[in-house]
Amino acid sequence: MVLKIGVIGVGMIGQDHIRRCIEVLNGCEIVAASDINLEHVKAVLKKYKINGKAYTEGLDVISSPDVDAIIVASSGPSHEKYVLAAIEAGKPVFCEKPLAVTAEGCQRIVEAEMKAGKRLVQVGFMRSFDSCYRKLKEMLNTRELGEPLVVKCVHHNSEVGDSYTTDMGITDSMVHEFDIMRWLLDDDYETIQVVSPRITKYAHTGVQDPQLVLLRTKKGILITIDLFVNCQYGYDIRCDVVCEDGIAYMPSPLQVQTRTKGKFGEHVNTDWRERFIVAYDIELQSFIDNAKNNIVMGPSAWDGFIASKTAAAGMKALESGEIVSVNLPQCPSFYKK
Amino acid sequence: MVLKIGVIGVGMIGQDHIRRCIEVLNGCEIVAASDINLEHVKAVLKKYKINGKAYTEGLDVISSPDVDAIIVASSGPSHEKYVLAAIEAGKPVFCEKPLAVTAEGCQRIVEAEMKAGKRLVQVGFMRSFDSCYRKLKEMLNTRELGEPLVVKCVHHNSEVGDSYTTDMGITDSMVHEFDIMRWLLDDDYETIQVVSPRITKYAHTGVQDPQLVLLRTKKGILITIDLFVNCQYGYDIRCDVVCEDGIAYMPSPLQVQTRTKGKFGEHVNTDWRERFIVAYDIELQSFIDNAKNNIVMGPSAWDGFIASKTAAAGMKALESGEIVSVNLPQCPSFYKK
Amino acid sequence: MVLKIGVIGVGMIGQDHIRRCIEVLNGCEIVAASDINLEHVKAVLKKYKINGKAYTEGLDVISSPDVDAIIVASSGPSHEKYVLAAIEAGKPVFCEKPLAVTAEGCQRIVEAEMKAGKRLVQVGFMRSFDSCYRKLKEMLNTRELGEPLVVKCVHHNSEVGDSYTTDMGITDSMVHEFDIMRWLLDDDYETIQVVSPRITKYAHTGVQDPQLVLLRTKKGILITIDLFVNCQYGYDIRCDVVCEDGIAYMPSPLQVQTRTKGKFGEHVNTDWRERFIVAYDIELQSFIDNAKNNIVMGPSAWDGFIASKTAAAGMKALESGEIVSVNLPQCPSFYKK
Amino acid sequence: MVLKIGVIGVGMIGQDHIRRCIEVLNGCEIVAASDINLEHVKAVLKKYKINGKAYTEGLDVISSPDVDAIIVASSGPSHEKYVLAAIEAGKPVFCEKPLAVTAEGCQRIVEAEMKAGKRLVQVGFMRSFDSCYRKLKEMLNTRELGEPLVVKCVHHNSEVGDSYTTDMGITDSMVHEFDIMRWLLDDDYETIQVVSPRITKYAHTGVQDPQLVLLRTKKGILITIDLFVNCQYGYDIRCDVVCEDGIAYMPSPLQVQTRTKGKFGEHVNTDWRERFIVAYDIELQSFIDNAKNNIVMGPSAWDGFIASKTAAAGMKALESGEIVSVNLPQCPSFYKK
Repeated sequence: MVLKIGVIGVGMIGQDHIRRCIEVLNGCEIVAASDINLEHVKAVLKKYKINGKAYTEGLDVISSPDVDAIIVASSGPSHEKYVLAAIEAGKPVFCEKPLAVTAEGCQRIVEAEMKAGKRLVQVGFMRSFDSCYRKLKEMLNTRELGEPLVVKCVHHNSEVGDSYTTDMGITDSMVHEFDIMRWLLDDDYETIQVVSPRITKYAHTGVQDPQLVLLRTKKGILITIDLFVNCQYGYDIRCDVVCEDGIAYMPSPLQVQTRTKGKFGEHVNTDWRERFIVAYDIELQSFIDNAKNNIVMGPSAWDGFIASKTAAAGMKALESGEIVSVNLPQCPSFYKK
Repeated sequence: MVLKIGVIGVGMIGQDHIRRCIEVLNGCEIVAASDINLEHVKAVLKKYKINGKAYTEGLDVISSPDVDAIIVASSGPSHEKYVLAAIEAGKPVFCEKPLAVTAEGCQRIVEAEMKAGKRLVQVGFMRSFDSCYRKLKEMLNTRELGEPLVVKCVHHNSEVGDSYTTDMGITDSMVHEFDIMRWLLDDDYETIQVVSPRITKYAHTGVQDPQLVLLRTKKGILITIDLFVNCQYGYDIRCDVVCEDGIAYMPSPLQVQTRTKGKFGEHVNTDWRERFIVAYDIELQSFIDNAKNNIVMGPSAWDGFIASKTAAAGMKALESGEIVSVNLPQCPSFYKK
Repeated sequence: MVLKIGVIGVGMIGQDHIRRCIEVLNGCEIVAASDINLEHVKAVLKKYKINGKAYTEGLDVISSPDVDAIIVASSGPSHEKYVLAAIEAGKPVFCEKPLAVTAEGCQRIVEAEMKAGKRLVQVGFMRSFDSCYRKLKEMLNTRELGEPLVVKCVHHNSEVGDSYTTDMGITDSMVHEFDIMRWLLDDDYETIQVVSPRITKYAHTGVQDPQLVLLRTKKGILITIDLFVNCQYGYDIRCDVVCEDGIAYMPSPLQVQTRTKGKFGEHVNTDWRERFIVAYDIELQSFIDNAKNNIVMGPSAWDGFIASKTAAAGMKALESGEIVSVNLPQCPSFYKK
Repeated sequence: MVLKIGVIGVGMIGQDHIRRCIEVLNGCEIVAASDINLEHVKAVLKKYKINGKAYTEGLDVISSPDVDAIIVASSGPSHEKYVLAAIEAGKPVFCEKPLAVTAEGCQRIVEAEMKAGKRLVQVGFMRSFDSCYRKLKEMLNTRELGEPLVVKCVHHNSEVGDSYTTDMGITDSMVHEFDIMRWLLDDDYETIQVVSPRITKYAHTGVQDPQLVLLRTKKGILITIDLFVNCQYGYDIRCDVVCEDGIAYMPSPLQVQTRTKGKFGEHVNTDWRERFIVAYDIELQSFIDNAKNNIVMGPSAWDGFIASKTAAAGMKALESGEIVSVNLPQCPSFYKK
């Protein structure tokens, strides 16, 4: 059986998912796509030699009887509408980040999905499909090092453009840590604090960079996130977990070490594409494999909702400079893993 | 389309390939299997819930009209017969090492395949599918470090059983380096020398362990292979390439580093399964994907032949202690990459 | 010329300095020593075959005309008295930590020394003599990596005894970071915050372990100190400096890396003696070499005073859980480097 | 007591030893120096504000009653004469490499010293004073890893001048390994072989670079030396010791690791000065400290003799391409450690 996929939104990310389905993944075909610009949809389908239907309205993709499963890659504010429609239609939907632009929107999706009685939504948080994070979680799960006490995350980007604001450090960048730390630690957040160190000369005017975030979990684990989005040297995601009996360091992706030109060492990733390209492949293959068996797994609507709630608390903490309560609701048994 | 595979030999390796096809890989099914012991075949098919035919004679697997492609995993001396039959039948065949037990046997396969006019044979050298070797080759191919001059290989096993002989160091262990170094360097061998250092107390009586092999290629590159099959500490495959403008070190597989119990560092692989399990998966998936498109790629019968010739020269070098000429024939254009 | 040294206090540390002077260092001899227990002084002198005077009163050591320079290694509360007396006598004095048990005591020493018109006091902060910190400072001083923005310190001890209290994390352990960070960054502190993560099962009842301290400097640099005094795995002092153009990681002391017993890696130091033994030697040799030239350098009474003030603010921050102002006075030109 | 030193030869190395004695070391003064060019001697003494005697004849330095100990830093062919004279005079002599330009010359020194009845000669092999080699030897001496079986040395120079010949790879470069491996392993050589790989484009015409040397010891240990004197990337001395229970890797000197400009890693030493500067200091301080106690330790005339014999066998091996016997004499008990 081949999974017939409809793609909503053929901008950069939508096209990249189409390329992935066509060139990299197994067991799927693209049968429909939509975009406000119909000519653009047609051009993309042609580029990949896809004999599929082109729509201007995403809802038509969802309702098309040909379509088994949906990829939502349109602009953020439209996600909620399409995900709700896919749930309504009973079709598995892979939704790019953010699940919805507000915590309330996320909550509506959560409620709709619970009402539907089965998981239909996978949110595009790809880190849990990354082999480095998986290796780390495996190690922690052995409990060889005892309980985790302090987790130190690094989230460094080489540079960001003019449109990047201080807020986006929380809502767009660290939201990945907000999600993956819950997955890594099987825990939830109690408080959040944002600290603003000396600003790099490379930050655009008015942007606080770097930032340090402190999260405390229900178990009391302290998570620090060292965010630095104009770090110049590369794209660098790291995670040290200090446990009762030792420290575990997340591995970095495979690199050839060299001795050349007076230096010993290795390449640092250039950007998130290079760093997580394989995780994106595995994430979507996993969605496809599961959808063919009529199930949905991976990051859930609940995970999207909690990430959104945490980011909202982070925004308050950024404004006040104080330790802010995150106030997360209890996870319904529907979403328990 | 799903590739219908027949498996000849359901011993340890044959069973492992069946498990792989059923549980890990995409796009294939097992439709037939053979073994001298028919009950054993039936038991294996049952274990994996396979509704396939069971034979005692491998040739019946090959001639079965259901079967699109063959995996040869029987005992070494029978490989030649089955590979020749598969070529005769025009069916793609994946043959475990060795391709044949003599260089002459390999040569007969090469000749049969050339006569058939198209590649049908993939030999089970898995290292070229390993991400560590691939990363290294990518780096060398950039020529950023200039031409390779000296390559230093490490091939260490934790320990070997009673049945392991000094000869097997060359014919079974280093044969992997003989193959992969040609792939890595796009080069062929001129001479081989075997050096016998002080013997470890862990070697079984009469076994020379460690051994050091020196290979010189046509381009003059010197390859050293430090073989140590009772090294105690783990399974460790490494490769440093000294080039004109620097050294490239093959990466080791991803490991979580830890600080615990007075040590900083990481796990060393336990055995070849742990080290190369993913390469085995990719190797066979690649065979399947290609066979569905009616092509065969990866390590060829010619590669199997050359590995066999090099091992034969290595045996002479071991006996004589002298520098021995390898005398490799010119590669026919049929096999040029 | 040989520097004639008098040692006040021959407990563990005092004896260790005597051993160092006799067995390791050049250009000095021990001519007098004191301890409340006279027999103990005599026994120590005899043990090291020292033909020196034994006193019960440290002030007699200072006033002895034979004595060129003083080492104060008595119990903490007596330090202030002896250092003031040495200043009064115009003799160079090496004083073990703490300079005085209160910030006020330190201030009195500072004032006395300034009145004396020349530096006479070196405080026993040994880290600035450690080759790892020196290498790091050299690198930062090149400004190759631009300005430092965030510094992440690790201060881990294998374990501590029953008598170790939460307060001591600040006054005894992190006081080393309070001192060395000013030296490393040529900066002073504005605020301090103490965060209390989940407690390890290895902590004694009532002790908060680990602790995380956040210091903000006048330049806005954020310093985090991850203190964990029952970390089990070893004694581990690290320092990462995130700068505008890259990160510098303080090297760890030389270790032979090994592959053995399934692990690749290296030994982690066992305790502070093993880690800093050479720094202690260099620290005291430096005191001796300078004293022979009638000068005093290295960590000053001012440094001791500031460390004490910072620890006092840290204690308030620990109690309140809030961000506390450190309120450091301006450095007098007398102490500017 | 201060050791009064006379220096023979004030070329680059001689001057460097004078600077070292004046600026770095303790317990010595320079009281005389010689050079064929008297004005040059005077200029050097003046430069370092030394109030010592200037001679044109090194023998006058040796016979000067002021002089307690000699440093021989003149041109190689004159070493033998001066060392013999120093022995005759009963004065401790530190002789730069080579001890003598022929093995026969070395032997005459050995015989003279044995006749004198006590050790008077220290040869300037500095590696045994290097902390990296010392750490490695300490580890091996614990026998934690069992017996050494194979030792893999790397000796890489960034580049060499026009005057460097293939022979010098053996007589000037690898002679350091010939010496230090005996010290490391407490063993002697049986055979030597020289292998000539593909030549780097950076080698001057007619120079074989890289070279690989294989030494076999009396205990059967195999030593490989990977010499590459135009390696471009830096000065790199390494040593891996494969033992029965694991591998020990000699540490590299302390370096700050950085993440900057797309790379993670560290500086490689630029040249032998940078790499071994501290070892040179310790080597000469050790000579001084011992000479003050009227003893001589460190690399002996016997060690210089054996290094010379090994290099001579290496030259034969280079010419013949064959495995050549080293034929080392038995070590007299006089020189046993």
